[in-house]
Amino acid sequence: MKLRSPLLLVTATCLTIQIQAQQTIGQVRNYRQANEQKIMAEYLEFLAIPNVTSDTVNIRRNIDFIKGMMESRGIEVKLLGGRTPGVNKAVMGKVTVPGATQTIGFYAHYDGQPVNPKQWAPGLEPFKPVFLTAAIENGGKIISDYRPGQPIQPNWRLSGRGSADDKAGVMTILNAYEALVKNKTKLKHNLIFLFEGEEEEGSTHLDEIFEEHTQELKADCWIISDGPRHVSGKKSVVFGVRGDVNVSLTVYGPKRPLHSGNYGNWAPNPARMLVELLAGMKDASGRVLINGFYDDVIPLTVLEKEALANIPDIEQTLKKELGIVEPEGGGLPFLELLNQPTLNINGIASANVGAMASNIIPAKAEAVLDLRLVLGNDAERQVKKLTDHIRSKGYHILDHEPTDAERATYPKLIRVSDGTGYNAQRTPMNLPIARQVVKAVQSTTTDKVVLLPSAGGSLPLYMFETILGAKVVTVPVVNYDNNQHAENENVQISFLWEGIETMAALMLM
Amino acid sequence: MKLRSPLLLVTATCLTIQIQAQQTIGQVRNYRQANEQKIMAEYLEFLAIPNVTSDTVNIRRNIDFIKGMMESRGIEVKLLGGRTPGVNKAVMGKVTVPGATQTIGFYAHYDGQPVNPKQWAPGLEPFKPVFLTAAIENGGKIISDYRPGQPIQPNWRLSGRGSADDKAGVMTILNAYEALVKNKTKLKHNLIFLFEGEEEEGSTHLDEIFEEHTQELKADCWIISDGPRHVSGKKSVVFGVRGDVNVSLTVYGPKRPLHSGNYGNWAPNPARMLVELLAGMKDASGRVLINGFYDDVIPLTVLEKEALANIPDIEQTLKKELGIVEPEGGGLPFLELLNQPTLNINGIASANVGAMASNIIPAKAEAVLDLRLVLGNDAERQVKKLTDHIRSKGYHILDHEPTDAERATYPKLIRVSDGTGYNAQRTPMNLPIARQVVKAVQSTTTDKVVLLPSAGGSLPLYMFETILGAKVVTVPVVNYDNNQHAENENVQISFLWEGIETMAALMLM
Repeated sequence: MKLRSPLLLVTATCLTIQIQAQQTIGQVRNYRQANEQKIMAEYLEFLAIPNVTSDTVNIRRNIDFIKGMMESRGIEVKLLGGRTPGVNKAVMGKVTVPGATQTIGFYAHYDGQPVNPKQWAPGLEPFKPVFLTAAIENGGKIISDYRPGQPIQPNWRLSGRGSADDKAGVMTILNAYEALVKNKTKLKHNLIFLFEGEEEEGSTHLDEIFEEHTQELKADCWIISDGPRHVSGKKSVVFGVRGDVNVSLTVYGPKRPLHSGNYGNWAPNPARMLVELLAGMKDASGRVLINGFYDDVIPLTVLEKEALANIPDIEQTLKKELGIVEPEGGGLPFLELLNQPTLNINGIASANVGAMASNIIPAKAEAVLDLRLVLGNDAERQVKKLTDHIRSKGYHILDHEPTDAERATYPKLIRVSDGTGYNAQRTPMNLPIARQVVKAVQSTTTDKVVLLPSAGGSLPLYMFETILGAKVVTVPVVNYDNNQHAENENVQISFLWEGIETMAALMLM
Repeated sequence: MKLRSPLLLVTATCLTIQIQAQQTIGQVRNYRQANEQKIMAEYLEFLAIPNVTSDTVNIRRNIDFIKGMMESRGIEVKLLGGRTPGVNKAVMGKVTVPGATQTIGFYAHYDGQPVNPKQWAPGLEPFKPVFLTAAIENGGKIISDYRPGQPIQPNWRLSGRGSADDKAGVMTILNAYEALVKNKTKLKHNLIFLFEGEEEEGSTHLDEIFEEHTQELKADCWIISDGPRHVSGKKSVVFGVRGDVNVSLTVYGPKRPLHSGNYGNWAPNPARMLVELLAGMKDASGRVLINGFYDDVIPLTVLEKEALANIPDIEQTLKKELGIVEPEGGGLPFLELLNQPTLNINGIASANVGAMASNIIPAKAEAVLDLRLVLGNDAERQVKKLTDHIRSKGYHILDHEPTDAERATYPKLIRVSDGTGYNAQRTPMNLPIARQVVKAVQSTTTDKVVLLPSAGGSLPLYMFETILGAKVVTVPVVNYDNNQHAENENVQISFLWEGIETMAALMLM
């Protein structure tokens, strides 16, 4: 008998591990296929519970529901609330595996962005999930004759606030775990599950929760299940996020709305003042004109730049899909632009438009801005650049409605209020744990996994590093065209199914 | 017996007439005081009928109510509807006086501007009229313990859509007539009453009504009861109006709202595009920068300029009242500014602000503009200057939602739709009939009546000249701080009472 060379032996071992991993994923898939109806019924029930962060009554119902999901899967549950009373509790579960040397944490959030039901397509309601033949924007129709028990097509969409962002995270993580347990798969690592309830308001108390429960939340790596997979549809691993801070602006005109005929040309129109102020903040290419806006940015590393270069180019797809001819950014590539700070108008309002419009000079005009931050930016410093800019345009800045005395003193009054912001985070792509994550995700797909140095979106991931001392990597599961944060939010069914497999692979990585 | 000189005789005759007039007005006042409860009960019932122009079901109820008001006063009623089906009928009444040589028409409108009940102060509803101790903006409170039959204070306000604009016109005209009839005052002129139901949508069919009923509406002079009295509180006569045309703009961004993190810096933000477009239309002083915007303006005559100079200066009062330090107009006097064309932002909207704001790049941004026109301007020509300007900024102008093909072709897409507009009108102040009106109004007050060559506001008064061949003069009755067209619309009770006297004097002029 000839001795095998050591190299061959290693290769063979790797191959065995790889085959084992693929077999396990196959078992997870089989389990899901056999239990599709049960899994979907539970998810529909979950999505029907309103989850806007500020809606504390329904948030409590979400907590109870997730607690039930976890307990039915044999996971012990603890609610974490930080020090401040009234915090939307985070739901934590822990699985201790005898002999395990590594602990992997899985994070998702169960709260959702505010909803304006009037903006949803006819027949769609944020908290009455229904199946669609496709995305509404691509001509999708509601499958109104669907009855529980009927087969669910993988290319269908499921609509509802949170269907993609980010109850999909909770759903895929817990069903991945269930599939492993039901298949009696031997677990290698201790697991922690953490589902937050205040992410959409900027994870206002996550720092407190981390500080109060540092020991319980200790993990070698946290996997964040949030955000969309790459536009190409390929599975993705994301090593960082932009930071984010919101700023609300209210410009004041006359004390009461005025007849535009009887006062037009004389009374200052706050909508005119606001559009002038906002227009002066960016040039036509979208470049921010505020002093020093780009000064703090830490450039991407060589490795990160290489990763960007390897990502499939999706600009043409996006342009077609979104009906865009000329993007902002003065010709810079999409991914480079996502690695710069932003100043975005989230919304603007003054008096009424459409059928409710009337011939008036409004009393005030409001805008909400969203400042995305990259590595090097600081939320507070970035807001200060903005307020300095506003002040340089002759505005007196208030943190309250103007008093009569203030109205009598200052020609230009603006109220500026900024939300709790947080900074960007990037995990170096060459860390062993980072490579381990990539390998696990890659084991579930024949497509090349897309590696993104930083997502365009935001999560307060810096806290995982600074408070918990853990590495953190994001593995998104949902389709990119999910209308996250907006009306008609939806998830494609196949992405949920594949997400369960991805999460299972990560639990075994 | 000494012969009186002819001059003395004339003076004595004039004095007699004046005394007679004042006695008659005294009688009108007595009648009103004795019947205050009945008059107010009827007005409260009238205001409780919703009157938004587009609400045809309730418009019909308003018509029935006015018909009832007129018939109970012995006036024969006819509904005028023009040629187009579905027009909100104008309610006409006619009083023929044997031997009369002049016919005086009285016009008001019963429809009201759209309402957004959410914008009204707590406890106020557009169509549940209530008494207030003062204007809400000046700390007025709802008089919630008021019961019918209790005395009504003249300094109270009565809130509700139409309370000032312009059911007050209908109310004061019909009660003036009733007071004269009940006092058995001998009428001198034939009278026509005309109450329109589409004024707030630009009197879209008034031309048709005039064309169909030219003979029945033939009058020497039409008195328009609409708009506010002068800010000084003095009674006013107004000889003209600005014209008006509305334009709606919708700028398109991506086909669907996008996550501001995942697309921020790349996807064009339509709110940014719209603020840039709007900001470029006016300078900081409010001067319109659109090519040729002021070119057609016919300047005021010497007499009109003199009249302006005689009007009490109310800028300081207005500034204090409205909380304005620096008006627009680069230092030009208020009244001169009201005699220039305007470009006003009535409202602007893109996605959401406040609690419903979310971190998105909106799919569209909308604004409604209001272009006031002065003598010389033409509505169509003025809109064309605006669209030429928009085109010069690189926009492709649509009259529909963009198709995929249009989205794929044009980087900047805007939908522009303009409402039916109409031009300005000015009656020369030195016409005999104009002087007759001034004299009648002056006979009801010891204050000097304010004579205004043109109001800042708009009414399609040109039609009275061009179609009916009549002279037209406006005699407003309500307080200026009435929140006309906006939330918390209200009328001060004393202005209603005085309005009845003014209208009675005009019927006898």
